[in-house]
Amino acid sequence: MRAEATDKVEGFEPPALGEPYLLTPGPLTTASSVKQAMLRDWGSWDGDFRAMTGDLRNRLLALTGDKKGEFDCVPIQGSGTFAVEAMLGSFVPRDGKVLVLANGAYGLRAAQTMQYLGRAHTLIDKGDYLPPRGAEVAAALDADPAITHVIVIHCETSSGILNPVGEISEAVYAKGRKLLIDSMSAFGAIPLDVNEIRYEVMVSSANKCIEGVPGFGFVIARKSELEAAKGRSHSLSLDIHAQWAAMEKTGQWRFTPPTHVVAAFLQALKLHEAEGGVAGRGARYAKNRDVMVAGMRELGFETLLSEQWLSPIIVTFFCPAHEKFSFPRFYDLMKGKGFIIYPGKLTVVESFRVGCIGHMDEHVMRRVVEAAAASLNEMGVDTAAPPATAIAERAKLAA
Amino acid sequence: MRAEATDKVEGFEPPALGEPYLLTPGPLTTASSVKQAMLRDWGSWDGDFRAMTGDLRNRLLALTGDKKGEFDCVPIQGSGTFAVEAMLGSFVPRDGKVLVLANGAYGLRAAQTMQYLGRAHTLIDKGDYLPPRGAEVAAALDADPAITHVIVIHCETSSGILNPVGEISEAVYAKGRKLLIDSMSAFGAIPLDVNEIRYEVMVSSANKCIEGVPGFGFVIARKSELEAAKGRSHSLSLDIHAQWAAMEKTGQWRFTPPTHVVAAFLQALKLHEAEGGVAGRGARYAKNRDVMVAGMRELGFETLLSEQWLSPIIVTFFCPAHEKFSFPRFYDLMKGKGFIIYPGKLTVVESFRVGCIGHMDEHVMRRVVEAAAASLNEMGVDTAAPPATAIAERAKLAA
Repeated sequence: MRAEATDKVEGFEPPALGEPYLLTPGPLTTASSVKQAMLRDWGSWDGDFRAMTGDLRNRLLALTGDKKGEFDCVPIQGSGTFAVEAMLGSFVPRDGKVLVLANGAYGLRAAQTMQYLGRAHTLIDKGDYLPPRGAEVAAALDADPAITHVIVIHCETSSGILNPVGEISEAVYAKGRKLLIDSMSAFGAIPLDVNEIRYEVMVSSANKCIEGVPGFGFVIARKSELEAAKGRSHSLSLDIHAQWAAMEKTGQWRFTPPTHVVAAFLQALKLHEAEGGVAGRGARYAKNRDVMVAGMRELGFETLLSEQWLSPIIVTFFCPAHEKFSFPRFYDLMKGKGFIIYPGKLTVVESFRVGCIGHMDEHVMRRVVEAAAASLNEMGVDTAAPPATAIAERAKLAA
Repeated sequence: MRAEATDKVEGFEPPALGEPYLLTPGPLTTASSVKQAMLRDWGSWDGDFRAMTGDLRNRLLALTGDKKGEFDCVPIQGSGTFAVEAMLGSFVPRDGKVLVLANGAYGLRAAQTMQYLGRAHTLIDKGDYLPPRGAEVAAALDADPAITHVIVIHCETSSGILNPVGEISEAVYAKGRKLLIDSMSAFGAIPLDVNEIRYEVMVSSANKCIEGVPGFGFVIARKSELEAAKGRSHSLSLDIHAQWAAMEKTGQWRFTPPTHVVAAFLQALKLHEAEGGVAGRGARYAKNRDVMVAGMRELGFETLLSEQWLSPIIVTFFCPAHEKFSFPRFYDLMKGKGFIIYPGKLTVVESFRVGCIGHMDEHVMRRVVEAAAASLNEMGVDTAAPPATAIAERAKLAA
């Protein structure tokens, strides 16, 4: 490896050449050493690269706390959605039935994937952001004995809510079913220890809380589930069992891996370890969120979610009702000041999102708030108080 | 863009830090400016990145000679195999039937993909390298009126053969069927002009003759076929129609794109244009092949294929029968001298492959031959004459 884990946690150098910070749920701002790891070409068949793949798998597995060797890690090419589809196609038997817990776009996408697969599924749709709770999962499982698996989104980035996977896991296993977790934007910053939360399979991707660049995802699955997955997949490319079996046998990816992205990810894993692993990474993101949310609230912005549900990943704010506020203008003003924010995904009310993840710290988040204040000022918006409809929407969560 | 198309065609700088040249069918050795284009992070939702995606699609389309605007280009995340699967799943109707023309691993993989899809197909398997010919395709189509589509591998890198897609296309359309081309390792260096060879869809990937880094593939398809593809795909992630429709509407990839790989590819496309496009790139690769093959033959190595079928992409050589020759040792010796070669894929006889593609020229290829001579010497192999079984195998091509 050319790049080493030399970036200090404190040393958050600004992006090169004045490029903007990405306050988005990924692709995100990465450390310069992560990008520099892409400055060479690797032969994917060569032993050096096979060793890198092995190192990557072991480092990811270590983040789950699996001390008994019961789990294994299988990277898979493509975006996070490819990895979720690979998980559903490989771990749900063709005659299985999945209960999809949805409270946003990613839950609904899991249901849509099941439709493509043509396998049985049912949906609890909580709308834009309300969390699925353990009790309602238990009731749904009681009502439908055909359900074999439940899938939950760990952090639903549509709203930024951190779903209660602990109580959902308890409900699922109390009813003798199996849990699949889409931990795309949470894994690496929010604990998902196999000794604390029971699950069969989880999935995440390179360009989220580990802070790599996009190009592949990975599945971490119980080995017994990996063995049982043989012959189930609807897709050659997305067959996790076949990918696992080939990697175990040859150390290689079945098909051409994104070699540069893999090299960058290994460097990102080293930085993650140097920061103190999941706990250290999660602490920085939580601080990012706290500083940013406090500052935005001072400007009059209000969060969709109350404290209990706010993730340290991404935060949804209501757009102010002020007649001079326009999100496209706000986006451009913020971008001009060096910050790319993210549009909202709520169906009922106008909103936008600000990410807390990526290679940046609280000092950067203070500058985000300053940029928001200056942008409001330039738009002639004196206060960012949210509209009444937003307040009403917000009240649903307490109800 | 930070990196510009400043690399001269003549200026083939050595890889950084003494890393080896990749004489493989991809991932391959890329220009340093291509890798340097990955030194920044892009927001995939942002207008700047959407413009990059549009530029990439237009530049690829231009390489097909489509002047009437009848085709469109759809990039898709994952390796080349993902793109081939996406093509088969999206362009072959569920009640269609595919004739797969196989003479190596990639043809057989297309047939395996059809099995995963559960759609009808039949196979002409020519073994390790013999080319499928127009006349036998015509006969197969006459014999089975249910066949709707034919898929051929343009350059089958298992052997390095350049298959006769022109005569195959003529046979396919004379019988009123449709042609799909897997031009993975050929597109960008071997002409595939829509005005000269008729086809409905072709597929290739970022890390082949355009000399980008791996992470996505792309489909170039007749627009009428793209429109007809709606609702056919077996996979959410690999649904080319959905990817196309979303890109047309929003300029975005449906799911997170490999942003850095895309930036690198755009730079690679600029270098490709600067070199004289398909003709210029193809001429350099042909020279690479000619210099390398002539030198290897002088050492006593013999090619599997005769001149007519030798592609300028990758060349298969028989392993010498000499008792002191061992491929793993030869591989390591060549790697130690700065050249990573590729194992063979023939089932009947021992072989290895040497790629001609990537950011290198005839001067590099001369050094490859010198390294092979030195490696033979170090192994105590006085001549690299191939075994009699290899000669017999080779004779099949002439028969």
